[in-house]
Amino acid sequence: MCRWLAYSGSPILLEELLYKPAHSLIDQSMHSRLGVETTNGDGFGVGWYGSEGLAPAVFREVGPAWSDRNLREMAGHVASPLFLAHIRASTGTAVQQTNCHPFRHGSWLWVHNGAIRDFSQIKRELVLAVDPSLYPAMEGSTDSEVMFFLALTFGLDGDPHAAVEQMVGFVEAAAAGHGIANPLQMTIGASNGSAVWAFRYSSEGRSRSLFYSTKMQTMRQLYPDNPVFQTVSEDTRLIVSEPLGDLPGAWNEVPESSYGVVHQGDDELHPFRPRLP
Amino acid sequence: MCRWLAYSGSPILLEELLYKPAHSLIDQSMHSRLGVETTNGDGFGVGWYGSEGLAPAVFREVGPAWSDRNLREMAGHVASPLFLAHIRASTGTAVQQTNCHPFRHGSWLWVHNGAIRDFSQIKRELVLAVDPSLYPAMEGSTDSEVMFFLALTFGLDGDPHAAVEQMVGFVEAAAAGHGIANPLQMTIGASNGSAVWAFRYSSEGRSRSLFYSTKMQTMRQLYPDNPVFQTVSEDTRLIVSEPLGDLPGAWNEVPESSYGVVHQGDDELHPFRPRLP
Amino acid sequence: MCRWLAYSGSPILLEELLYKPAHSLIDQSMHSRLGVETTNGDGFGVGWYGSEGLAPAVFREVGPAWSDRNLREMAGHVASPLFLAHIRASTGTAVQQTNCHPFRHGSWLWVHNGAIRDFSQIKRELVLAVDPSLYPAMEGSTDSEVMFFLALTFGLDGDPHAAVEQMVGFVEAAAAGHGIANPLQMTIGASNGSAVWAFRYSSEGRSRSLFYSTKMQTMRQLYPDNPVFQTVSEDTRLIVSEPLGDLPGAWNEVPESSYGVVHQGDDELHPFRPRLP
Amino acid sequence: MCRWLAYSGSPILLEELLYKPAHSLIDQSMHSRLGVETTNGDGFGVGWYGSEGLAPAVFREVGPAWSDRNLREMAGHVASPLFLAHIRASTGTAVQQTNCHPFRHGSWLWVHNGAIRDFSQIKRELVLAVDPSLYPAMEGSTDSEVMFFLALTFGLDGDPHAAVEQMVGFVEAAAAGHGIANPLQMTIGASNGSAVWAFRYSSEGRSRSLFYSTKMQTMRQLYPDNPVFQTVSEDTRLIVSEPLGDLPGAWNEVPESSYGVVHQGDDELHPFRPRLP
Repeated sequence: MCRWLAYSGSPILLEELLYKPAHSLIDQSMHSRLGVETTNGDGFGVGWYGSEGLAPAVFREVGPAWSDRNLREMAGHVASPLFLAHIRASTGTAVQQTNCHPFRHGSWLWVHNGAIRDFSQIKRELVLAVDPSLYPAMEGSTDSEVMFFLALTFGLDGDPHAAVEQMVGFVEAAAAGHGIANPLQMTIGASNGSAVWAFRYSSEGRSRSLFYSTKMQTMRQLYPDNPVFQTVSEDTRLIVSEPLGDLPGAWNEVPESSYGVVHQGDDELHPFRPRLP
Repeated sequence: MCRWLAYSGSPILLEELLYKPAHSLIDQSMHSRLGVETTNGDGFGVGWYGSEGLAPAVFREVGPAWSDRNLREMAGHVASPLFLAHIRASTGTAVQQTNCHPFRHGSWLWVHNGAIRDFSQIKRELVLAVDPSLYPAMEGSTDSEVMFFLALTFGLDGDPHAAVEQMVGFVEAAAAGHGIANPLQMTIGASNGSAVWAFRYSSEGRSRSLFYSTKMQTMRQLYPDNPVFQTVSEDTRLIVSEPLGDLPGAWNEVPESSYGVVHQGDDELHPFRPRLP
Repeated sequence: MCRWLAYSGSPILLEELLYKPAHSLIDQSMHSRLGVETTNGDGFGVGWYGSEGLAPAVFREVGPAWSDRNLREMAGHVASPLFLAHIRASTGTAVQQTNCHPFRHGSWLWVHNGAIRDFSQIKRELVLAVDPSLYPAMEGSTDSEVMFFLALTFGLDGDPHAAVEQMVGFVEAAAAGHGIANPLQMTIGASNGSAVWAFRYSSEGRSRSLFYSTKMQTMRQLYPDNPVFQTVSEDTRLIVSEPLGDLPGAWNEVPESSYGVVHQGDDELHPFRPRLP
Repeated sequence: MCRWLAYSGSPILLEELLYKPAHSLIDQSMHSRLGVETTNGDGFGVGWYGSEGLAPAVFREVGPAWSDRNLREMAGHVASPLFLAHIRASTGTAVQQTNCHPFRHGSWLWVHNGAIRDFSQIKRELVLAVDPSLYPAMEGSTDSEVMFFLALTFGLDGDPHAAVEQMVGFVEAAAAGHGIANPLQMTIGASNGSAVWAFRYSSEGRSRSLFYSTKMQTMRQLYPDNPVFQTVSEDTRLIVSEPLGDLPGAWNEVPESSYGVVHQGDDELHPFRPRLP
């Protein structure tokens, strides 16, 4: 499986989260604690939004994140108020840039941890359901990308959580038609540059781990001496596959079958209910 | 566009054709003379059959062939009686192994030079026509791979030239439905390990170059002092996008809208006529 | 050989120079006009200084620049007031990141086009002359990197042009000791973040091409309707291996055996005279 | 650190050892049991001798072995009576082909697991001791390659174990001069195509693991039903950083501070004693 993180808040250098924490995402590429595999060495990617409202940039590479010098350089020189990063452990599909996350379409970025069971059996059926106008934009061979384009087909741009619920409902229905039990495992991070949506769900009700950071206001009270918490804005939030360190009180588990929205002002947390499109 | 070669005959080291000729395929990767582009640096591949009837091996890489050390090593140590090699100049799709030729399915290898015009407009329609049981085996995003899987769908394994004629007829019909004129440019090399098929065709009747080598018997008479021609068997044949050197009498152009078959005993050359499946 | 450019002036997105000009550096990676080779596909690199006085960032990759998606992304999102870019055509040494330019040490960046003739014969002697405290920082196997570290050894940080003149004098003396005639061909770009030095020299007096852009004030008078020339600052300068387009009056050849310095205020152009350290 | 294996015996397909065993070398690239790190994902290499006495071929790549498709293809089609394979976990030097093992010079191959402590402090001194005629052939930046070229300098070609003992003695003396305690950790495999030498040594007397396979005659008696043991020749031997499986009686530890020689006829096992050149 994979690991990912999403950041929203005051602009910070990518390295603040990718490299500096004790159990940073780059550290997780070799030493994941909560993943199915400890190693996530089959490529990586970072997608970031600028302050100026341009489409997001995406940097993806096929080697392990831990030894990538260009990522190290970039992370020390690029600052962003909203970015998603992902390290990949392939479940069989080719190790190539077009299979690395984040996937991007228009202003949207998409990262995924998990898998569709027996994907090759239902891939064709799923791909056929992608809007023909979106079809040519799919470049890779992963289940993650097909899930993204199904969600786009079902209206990700207008009502993100409804679109993802329909995507999941559609995948589960297709799998049922092929007798595939418990077809879906997923945590998903998605953003359009103004908010971040995070989903945690699995058909079997035992989903991959997902955490969100405690409110900065609380963090400042808990750790008055920590300089980082003093400088970032109140609405700064992190969502991560596994905690970036062992700070007590810093991390909260996203509940099973739930999704959250992070944006300026109050955040939200709701139940996630698959439905048919 | 791209360049390719196919060899059938006495087992020889790959380097005899990939590196040693004056205008070898590796030389063509940087200095093509007859191609649309002089540079073919977007990946390469070699597929070879062993003497023992195993499925063919495929070695594909994304960097330029001219600087690839592993290819140089392999070519000096692997001998084969039948192999196809390809250097790629991308027409826009990603530079990744799964887009490099030869493509392989079962005992078949497939190389292509050319393009389907406005491929993204008809890609979905073409992919839908691929046999669903073959669908999951497609890994890349090129027109070349879709053409291969359409040919497999139309019976490449049973009647190769009929399957390719139907593939072309189908692509041209799909393009006509979208108002795309002169949709197809192709030279194709295909093999199942016992014979090589080579196709030269374009909708507009002005196809990319393709040549076959003169019979060894004739070559020996023309060049009695050339040691290479003395040692390889009589039925040795080469098919190439462009000649490997300037030897007078060594190369013959494959006629426009034709295909040839190279196998033990006599070779064949026939007209190529697209037809609907 | 290689191609490079150096930019100093108002902060601009890298893509303004790497991609947008008619004959941009990325275009030169496949279609160089003035180079010894038309293809510069053996890796590339960009080094850029931020506005904030940090050490420069370096992004280097081993594939051809023309197909690198991460470079395309970066160039569209990273702005800089001073950067150097380089596309490589290897003269034999390995295609690997540590052989790609720019080389960096402390605040210095270094790009080179050219070669030391029979480098393998004198490499050991040159490397021995590198300051032992600098020795471990050399990571690659090129003549270009050794020239950089010799210049650092001879005081690049204090008196750049004197250090480079001594480097050249030392290389020529070492070559003379081995009976190597006309050992050096070079155009070099170097920067410490506050100025750019550009050198054009060859032992034989027939050096690789190098050009600098005409003063912005003049450009504005020549082309009053060009929006680019109106927005960048007066002291904006470009130094390039070959012109980025065919604009009459835009480019001036750096004279044979000369060096220039670009910094805020007036630029300089002086004769270059090799000398012994 | 790294993992390696050396095979000498009846010609077999590389995949028989690289992929098929329960705890094969490729499995060890992600799940090493006895290594300092469980992950060896910083490149890999295979060097093999043909049956015909040519110089060995070397295939090296910078990505993880576990996902490399070309290695998988090669291993299924290349057979050899003597080969060395290596998976790398970098201790800091660049991930590039020229730092991947096996290193090759003439007919020699060299693989290493371990490190020279504080290598950057004594690298220059060690490199200066390499024979000037060999110097230009060093292409990478690892301690392993310098150790190889020192051994070549001290006569590897004539008296292999004496040359390696002198190499170690020289490295330890150089380290002592810099106040570096316990400078060397190593297991080394080396071959000239007619025999394999395996060394296990560390300055502190607590060396990395190394094992050799039990004699085939014994294996056949222990496991009369195992078809592999019946078909390979009596003098077939494997030397490995860690056992390829849990077969009782199959593996013997190379004693601390020892070296072994595997060749046709009887094998040898001797004490290893560093000495000054």
